[in-house]
Amino acid sequence: MATIVALRTFDIRFPTSKGLDGSDAMNPDPDYSAAYVELSTDDPTGLAGYGLVFTIGRGNDVQAAAIQALSHLVCNQDVDELVADLGAFARKLTNDSQLRWLGPEKGVMHMAIGSVINAAWDLAARRAGKPLWRFIADMSPEQIVRTVDFRYINDALTPEEALGILRRSALGKAARLAALMEHGYPAYTTSPGWLGYSDEKLRRLARAAVADGFRTIKIKVGLDVEDDVRRCRMAREAIGPDCALAIDANQRWNVPEAITWIRRLAQFRIAWMEEPTSPDDVLGHAAIRRAVSPVPISTGEHAQNRVMFKQLFQAQAVDLVQIDAVRVGGVNENLAILLLAAKFGIRVFPHAGGVGLCELVQHLAMADFLAISGNMEDRAIEYVDHLHEHFVSPVRIVNGRYAAPTAPGFSSQMHDQSVNDYEFPTGRVWRQLIDHPSPVVGSIRAGDH
Amino acid sequence: MATIVALRTFDIRFPTSKGLDGSDAMNPDPDYSAAYVELSTDDPTGLAGYGLVFTIGRGNDVQAAAIQALSHLVCNQDVDELVADLGAFARKLTNDSQLRWLGPEKGVMHMAIGSVINAAWDLAARRAGKPLWRFIADMSPEQIVRTVDFRYINDALTPEEALGILRRSALGKAARLAALMEHGYPAYTTSPGWLGYSDEKLRRLARAAVADGFRTIKIKVGLDVEDDVRRCRMAREAIGPDCALAIDANQRWNVPEAITWIRRLAQFRIAWMEEPTSPDDVLGHAAIRRAVSPVPISTGEHAQNRVMFKQLFQAQAVDLVQIDAVRVGGVNENLAILLLAAKFGIRVFPHAGGVGLCELVQHLAMADFLAISGNMEDRAIEYVDHLHEHFVSPVRIVNGRYAAPTAPGFSSQMHDQSVNDYEFPTGRVWRQLIDHPSPVVGSIRAGDH
Repeated sequence: MATIVALRTFDIRFPTSKGLDGSDAMNPDPDYSAAYVELSTDDPTGLAGYGLVFTIGRGNDVQAAAIQALSHLVCNQDVDELVADLGAFARKLTNDSQLRWLGPEKGVMHMAIGSVINAAWDLAARRAGKPLWRFIADMSPEQIVRTVDFRYINDALTPEEALGILRRSALGKAARLAALMEHGYPAYTTSPGWLGYSDEKLRRLARAAVADGFRTIKIKVGLDVEDDVRRCRMAREAIGPDCALAIDANQRWNVPEAITWIRRLAQFRIAWMEEPTSPDDVLGHAAIRRAVSPVPISTGEHAQNRVMFKQLFQAQAVDLVQIDAVRVGGVNENLAILLLAAKFGIRVFPHAGGVGLCELVQHLAMADFLAISGNMEDRAIEYVDHLHEHFVSPVRIVNGRYAAPTAPGFSSQMHDQSVNDYEFPTGRVWRQLIDHPSPVVGSIRAGDH
Repeated sequence: MATIVALRTFDIRFPTSKGLDGSDAMNPDPDYSAAYVELSTDDPTGLAGYGLVFTIGRGNDVQAAAIQALSHLVCNQDVDELVADLGAFARKLTNDSQLRWLGPEKGVMHMAIGSVINAAWDLAARRAGKPLWRFIADMSPEQIVRTVDFRYINDALTPEEALGILRRSALGKAARLAALMEHGYPAYTTSPGWLGYSDEKLRRLARAAVADGFRTIKIKVGLDVEDDVRRCRMAREAIGPDCALAIDANQRWNVPEAITWIRRLAQFRIAWMEEPTSPDDVLGHAAIRRAVSPVPISTGEHAQNRVMFKQLFQAQAVDLVQIDAVRVGGVNENLAILLLAAKFGIRVFPHAGGVGLCELVQHLAMADFLAISGNMEDRAIEYVDHLHEHFVSPVRIVNGRYAAPTAPGFSSQMHDQSVNDYEFPTGRVWRQLIDHPSPVVGSIRAGDH
């Protein structure tokens, strides 16, 4: 008879802008951050659940405040009831009419809701003693369907169709489980490709990626087309003809500009062109895709909710999509998106990197492989080798593939020491930076921009 | 040589859930609220600018925190520079890459940015000694175009096309100014139609609206189709055959449900069907519109930014749109939306009500009439008779029309006394409610839901 007794939030920031890690055409100087949430219970075993929203610095405090504003919907929640109906729990959060006004179902408030829903799934999987991917894969098709909110998507996917997809995938699940445990899930890496990196660093990291077993790398583009041609050529030469090359413009272009630019870069056999324009522009992506065919077009890391994914699929605007573990309304909404993708036959290449995104999203991809799409060899999870050391159960990459996590939960818990050291602005690391700012470090202090 | 010296925010809430004013199919018990912002300067005349985000209660503190997070982009801003280039000022706020991550351009952070941009326009118009509608209408076509961010919309509207629209509307501006000053701008009223009202109250208020000179009323629908048929019939009988009847489902339906429901209600000669489904679902609106033709379909009050309006027009998803003064990125983005609407020949019926929405949006509609679309007799601004007494320059309705405001600025300043009394939870009114809760009042205290 355990109960959730507290929701606590933490404003965690890492001073990554010092090294230009994570720099792209839209985000020149990110400080990778997490608005981190802990749901604690009165269970004598110390049962708790953890979630986070990834941000890139300023505003992480606002994101944490939005999570804290959900406290009244969570505290005193019976844990047995929560675990028995994770769909009802998620709908309680997404349907609070006063909070819904602040989206609806998008932006700061929706991400806050997603982090608490994810923390609840973490708690449920821990309680079951299973990693989240296995917890989901062990649910029956009927149980999975009950977690999904079909509001606003049932014109594209009915609960009955979802059940059909899940029932078909239930066949062969045991063989897929064995394959996943033995080989892991394919990864691709963005580590070589940040815009702030020198040519030499790009070349060196691209070669290292191939040597490490990755079959796909991704580089950032979008600031200068001649520069991009040069960098794509350099990357293609470094990885050789058999490795795939994806490129990512991080929403930099307008529709006409994207078309011109992509035509210049198509010569490098692009595996996919990611985020060519605004993530809101479904029809824009469709227009770009038609104009540059057969270059595969993708988006999704910033797609705000299932309604946008539905339209991307309906409009034939993308060849593949990214999903993000913390942008939408938690596991439930990502299950809706994965089911929509399966219905429309769209491959999913989960977005990761940031803070904890690799840790979380691997579970969704593996659950998809076992219970929904049934495929993994034609897709891959993004991987960036950043900040994993702050997590209690960090991802493990073996020969360019994600090893299936074995620890119970969503891999979302951070080390207490990391939370203490990087809490902004009072943690040890930030106090040191504020007391002894270097010229670069000085620029990342709040209010200094 | 004045400078902005402070950005201050206030969490203002009105306990409207006591009377079920503002209740609709999605929002049963709103406490109309405003995250209110003041930009103060060191100008010896006391020059300041005011803006707000309208919310419906819980989360208003999060919205205020998001506005406060913009302080570093605003403080020390030179007022002359601000007024000389309101486009550059707006882009400084929308392009802060770390804050942009929290949207991008949607939800809590985008509305926060919009409120500060609106406060800057208020300040600029006050400084010019003009009401905002006149301040905009007196700008040259080139000046107006410079305030607009064409990013992500130039595939539908180029700066040159926008200039063409504005130059055509510059002809005849003097005659339209005279007409506006003499007759005001048409209004329609939603006061009779809240779902929580009794039949008798609906009938009485509908008759009163016609007697007061309104030519259109709007009622809320969406909870029960038989009930809606009954209420639409009652409203139609009360207003007679010559008054227009609009209906509003506040996003209640899925696409198939909307089609069935609207076919039942079409018999009442609907002027427009507002928000049948998710505001994110451009293709859903297009499908509904095709299926129920010729019933006019509309949305926009919750459309997050200019990219969504662009697509609504491109997809022929709507017959008309609402705009909202505080949902998008301020005056600049609303000018982009009004220019897009003019390009596509879509009529605009601005959303109002709430807290201060009538006060603000009237300026945008009047500026549109003078400088952009050149039309007002085929459109109307929503009007609800709520909470105007808290504003220093409240709207004035004469014979069912908005009288053109004459006070300098955006009509966005609240009385100091109202700010003091309704600040949550420390203001006089809230302290009284918290100390002496009635059963209903008790339910609107933070954390009680």
